[in-house]
Amino acid sequence: MTELARATRGDRRPESLAAALLEGSPTALARGLTWAEAGGERAEALLALTYARGGRAHVVGVTGAPGSGKSTLTRALARVARQRGRTVGVLAVDPSSPFTGGAILGDRIRMNDLSLDPGVFIRSMATRGALGGLCRAAADAVDLMDAAGRDVVFVETVGVGQDEVEIMRVAHTVVVVSVPGLGDDVQALKAGILEVADVHVVNKADREGADRTIAELRAMLTLVPTPPGVPVPPVLRASATREEGIEAIADAVEAHGAALATSGQLDVRRRRAAEARVLAIAGTLIAAALGDPGRGDDGTLIEQVAKRTLVPHAAARALLAKARERERTSHV
Amino acid sequence: MTELARATRGDRRPESLAAALLEGSPTALARGLTWAEAGGERAEALLALTYARGGRAHVVGVTGAPGSGKSTLTRALARVARQRGRTVGVLAVDPSSPFTGGAILGDRIRMNDLSLDPGVFIRSMATRGALGGLCRAAADAVDLMDAAGRDVVFVETVGVGQDEVEIMRVAHTVVVVSVPGLGDDVQALKAGILEVADVHVVNKADREGADRTIAELRAMLTLVPTPPGVPVPPVLRASATREEGIEAIADAVEAHGAALATSGQLDVRRRRAAEARVLAIAGTLIAAALGDPGRGDDGTLIEQVAKRTLVPHAAARALLAKARERERTSHV
Repeated sequence: MTELARATRGDRRPESLAAALLEGSPTALARGLTWAEAGGERAEALLALTYARGGRAHVVGVTGAPGSGKSTLTRALARVARQRGRTVGVLAVDPSSPFTGGAILGDRIRMNDLSLDPGVFIRSMATRGALGGLCRAAADAVDLMDAAGRDVVFVETVGVGQDEVEIMRVAHTVVVVSVPGLGDDVQALKAGILEVADVHVVNKADREGADRTIAELRAMLTLVPTPPGVPVPPVLRASATREEGIEAIADAVEAHGAALATSGQLDVRRRRAAEARVLAIAGTLIAAALGDPGRGDDGTLIEQVAKRTLVPHAAARALLAKARERERTSHV
Repeated sequence: MTELARATRGDRRPESLAAALLEGSPTALARGLTWAEAGGERAEALLALTYARGGRAHVVGVTGAPGSGKSTLTRALARVARQRGRTVGVLAVDPSSPFTGGAILGDRIRMNDLSLDPGVFIRSMATRGALGGLCRAAADAVDLMDAAGRDVVFVETVGVGQDEVEIMRVAHTVVVVSVPGLGDDVQALKAGILEVADVHVVNKADREGADRTIAELRAMLTLVPTPPGVPVPPVLRASATREEGIEAIADAVEAHGAALATSGQLDVRRRRAAEARVLAIAGTLIAAALGDPGRGDDGTLIEQVAKRTLVPHAAARALLAKARERERTSHV
C-alpha cells in the first residue's frame, strides 16, 4: 500500500481515491473498479478525475468461444508481459473464466501464483445489464487500469454476442482464439468478431484438424481488408496449457501495437474505442428511461406507443430528452 | 387505383397520401413505403397521420439461415392466407430473397403469379444503415401495411445478426426456419433468435438428418420458458418447394395469434414491438449525431473523447442532447 493510499484509507471522496489510484495504489484501483462496476455518480466522478491521465496502456482484447482456452492463453500472455518488464492489468468479462471461478483446481493454483505478483492486477466482472451496461462497466474498468499506470491491460470476453463484440472495440489489439474441430467456431467468427481480429490464435494446436482450421482462417482473412500500415492478421498456433507458442503470440501483439503507433492507425482505434464507449453509456441512459412516463397519465412512453396513442418517432425524441434529464437529476 | 388515389395522384402532401393509404390504395401504399425507406420528415409525417389506425394486422416474422428456403415458405404461407380470405402484405428484408431478385427463374415466375393478385402486396427492402436504421425502416413499412388494412403482414429476414433479431421483435408471431444438416444453423439460433421463436419449421424435411434437427430443436426448447397462455413453440416439418406441410404451419401461426389475443400476451408483444422500434429510431438519431462537434473547436465529440479532452460520460450526455436537437431542426 502506498503512503497516500494509507493516508486516505476510509476516505470515500472520489478526489482522494483518484489521487491514490493515479499514484498506482492497487488498493485504490480495486476500490475504483468496484465503483466502476456499480456505476453511478461516484464512478463517473472518479472517471472524470482520472480519464485525462490515461491513454498510455496497450489494451489487448482476448476473445474466443467457450472452451477455446482463452483464459489460459491470457494468463500465459500476462506472464510473458511480466517477464518483459511490463506491469499488467487483467479484466475477465466471462462467467466461464477461471478468473471468475470457473476453473479446475490446477488452473486456480497457477492463477493464484500469478495474482501474488504485485505487477499483475486481476479483476473479473460478471455479465450484467442490457443495452451497453456491460460494455460501459468494462470500458470504465479498462480506463481505470490505464490511469493507474498498467502498461498492458488484457480484456478477456467470450466471443459470442453483440455485447462482447462491443467490448472488443475498446481494445487496440484483438486476439481471437479458435480451436480445431469446432466448425461452429469459425462460423461464429463470421458474425462480427472477424472484423475486429488483429491476431488469430489456433489453440490446442496438437489436436486433429488444426491445419484445416488454420487454412480456413487464412482463407477467410483474404476477404477482410487490412488498413494501410497495419500487418495482415497472422494466424498462429499455440498450446496454452503447455505454454507452447506464447512468445510468438506476445511478439505479434507487440508488433501490432507498434504498427498502430507508427501508421497513425492508433488514432483510428482510439476513435473506435471512444465511439463504442460513448454509445454504451448512451445506451444505458436510454434503457433506464424506457419506463419513464409518457404524455399525460396514460402509462409509460413504450405503453403509449403500444396502445397507439403516441407515435414511435415522437416517443424516440421524448426518450432522448428523458434520458438526458435523468442523467442530470439522478445518475445512472 | 381508388378514386381518392386517382384524385390525389401527383399530390405529394403527406395528408393526401395518408388518406389514400388508409383507404387501402396499393399505389398510395407503394409510395408510402418508398417514403418510409428513405426516412426523414415526410416519412415521419405519414406515420404520424396513419399510426393510430394500425394495430389490427397480424404481423408474422419469418426468419432462418440463408438457404433455408424461408422465402419459398413465406410465399406459400401468403398463398394459404389468401385462400383463407385474408389480404396480405409481404416485406422481404433479405438480399438473398427471391422477393429482392435473388431467385432462380422458376421462383420468379411463381413469385410474379403471386404478385398479380391485388390481395397480396409485396415489397423488398435492401439492407442499409447502421444502429437501427434498417429496423426503423422495416418497422415503419410494417405499420404502413397495417394501416393500409392488410390482414396479415409477413416480414422475412435472414436470421443472423443483431439487426435481424431486432426486426423480428416487431412481429407478433415469429416463424424460425431450419434445415437438416446445417449444424451451424441450430448453433446460430442459440445466439438470440431462439428466444423470439413461436413456431419452428424444419424445411426440406425430406433430407437426411431431419429427425435429428427436430430432436435438437425440441431439446433446446425445453430450456426456454413459454409465457402463460401461449403454446409451447411447435416444431413442424415442411417441404416448401413441394408445398407440403404449409397448411399445418399456417394453422400454428393462426393458433399462436389467437392465443396471444386471449391470454393477454398480445399486449406484451405490442410493448416489445414498441420498445424495439422506439430504440431503433433513437439509435438512428444518435448515430447521426456521433460526428457532431464537441465543446470548442477541437473536433467531434468522439474525437475529443479519443484525445481525452472530453470524458466519455459527458460526451454521452452531449450526444443525447445533440441527437434531440438535430431531430428538432433537420429530420433524419
